[in-house]
Amino acid sequence: MKTLFIGGVKSGKSRLAEAYILKAHIHRTAPDKPYYLATTEFIDEEMSARIAIHQQRRQDHFVTLEEPMQLLATLELCKRPVLVECVSMWLNNMLYHQVPETDILLELETVMKVSCDLVLVHNEVGLGIIPDNALARQFVDVSGKAAQMMAQHCDEVFLCSAGLKIAMK
Amino acid sequence: MKTLFIGGVKSGKSRLAEAYILKAHIHRTAPDKPYYLATTEFIDEEMSARIAIHQQRRQDHFVTLEEPMQLLATLELCKRPVLVECVSMWLNNMLYHQVPETDILLELETVMKVSCDLVLVHNEVGLGIIPDNALARQFVDVSGKAAQMMAQHCDEVFLCSAGLKIAMK
Amino acid sequence: MKTLFIGGVKSGKSRLAEAYILKAHIHRTAPDKPYYLATTEFIDEEMSARIAIHQQRRQDHFVTLEEPMQLLATLELCKRPVLVECVSMWLNNMLYHQVPETDILLELETVMKVSCDLVLVHNEVGLGIIPDNALARQFVDVSGKAAQMMAQHCDEVFLCSAGLKIAMK
Repeated sequence: MKTLFIGGVKSGKSRLAEAYILKAHIHRTAPDKPYYLATTEFIDEEMSARIAIHQQRRQDHFVTLEEPMQLLATLELCKRPVLVECVSMWLNNMLYHQVPETDILLELETVMKVSCDLVLVHNEVGLGIIPDNALARQFVDVSGKAAQMMAQHCDEVFLCSAGLKIAMK
Repeated sequence: MKTLFIGGVKSGKSRLAEAYILKAHIHRTAPDKPYYLATTEFIDEEMSARIAIHQQRRQDHFVTLEEPMQLLATLELCKRPVLVECVSMWLNNMLYHQVPETDILLELETVMKVSCDLVLVHNEVGLGIIPDNALARQFVDVSGKAAQMMAQHCDEVFLCSAGLKIAMK
Repeated sequence: MKTLFIGGVKSGKSRLAEAYILKAHIHRTAPDKPYYLATTEFIDEEMSARIAIHQQRRQDHFVTLEEPMQLLATLELCKRPVLVECVSMWLNNMLYHQVPETDILLELETVMKVSCDLVLVHNEVGLGIIPDNALARQFVDVSGKAAQMMAQHCDEVFLCSAGLKIAMK
């Protein structure tokens, strides 16, 4: 089972994804908690405040893994459901480290075939004005291709806004 | 009854919100017209043209109130349904006047508990690329938190695009 | 029959629109293929790569027309279904050549009344932060007005994200 939550900044997508995976695994007790795979690499003050909020919310419900780059290798080891928070940050890290776009998308396609249940969180960044800046445009492009490909492999896809979700698939 | 219309620039959200509140109150006659609470403070030429269009559309269906800052105090006095147009502009005014974010969100949470019916219009600004500019990022953040909180207290939430609405709640 | 696909950059809107029109005309054989009206005028390297991908995907299913400006005159001559890819680019071309906004919207309104079936692809650009730049703001505005007007005349409207569509009308 693969599920995608896509939405904007502060759309509540992470919270919805957490509630979703926890509801699906409500009867589980440690050590059967789902994994929470955090992909953030670069941490400034602003980011650090955001992370603290996310961590507090997760409390004791998840086993946290931190991995900014090796998404496939990490997920292949997981035998329990994983919440990936978030794919956009992983894309960003991969592009920053100059991994070619085709390699990134190929790795992501393989990720979609791992055996464990996945709940993926991803940013929708393509519904505003097209950015002037070529790097930002590249990010919008790769992000959209990644979203389409994940959605194609997912059983369920939800678009998020205002803390609510719309089922797209 | 509380209802939120969230959407982009020129998504038709204001027009949809007006049609919605007028339909709900179609049998009312003056002095029972709903209030139209306009929150715009800063008016340049571009804004002024926009406002003229909105005003023309409202015609004789609303009693217009203008209040850029004192949202709660104004709404507490209202005994009839109010269309708030729009929450984003009020957030913008509050941030401009350096009201702390926590105070803004606290006031908005209290607003959601006033006794009169509310139809709230709000901009979705989080579905494009994350802005470079820290102030714009802060606005996106506060705007998204406000949207989530309003949506949680609303009976109905509609996402708007192309002059159409999708029911999210 | 008029149908609008609106969505972000790399939302899959073109692909969805192509699949839609081809499915509707699945039993047709040449010379009854639908038209594909490409509106792109300015072609840089980035654009050229995008176009090559679109063309490859269209293969032998469409008769391609290329027209960056004369949308109405072109469509009035068509006796078979037309996929317009895309309205946003046409708006952009018209604004670049300083056609007044009212003339653009008037032409588009007349387009919506041509007798042939139309499948229109349009960018949603209004769900991010409002741009600093006055020209970009003008584009967002015209684009939104165009979307509302097309949607009003369409029998079906789909919002696209992640290669999926949500029926709005």
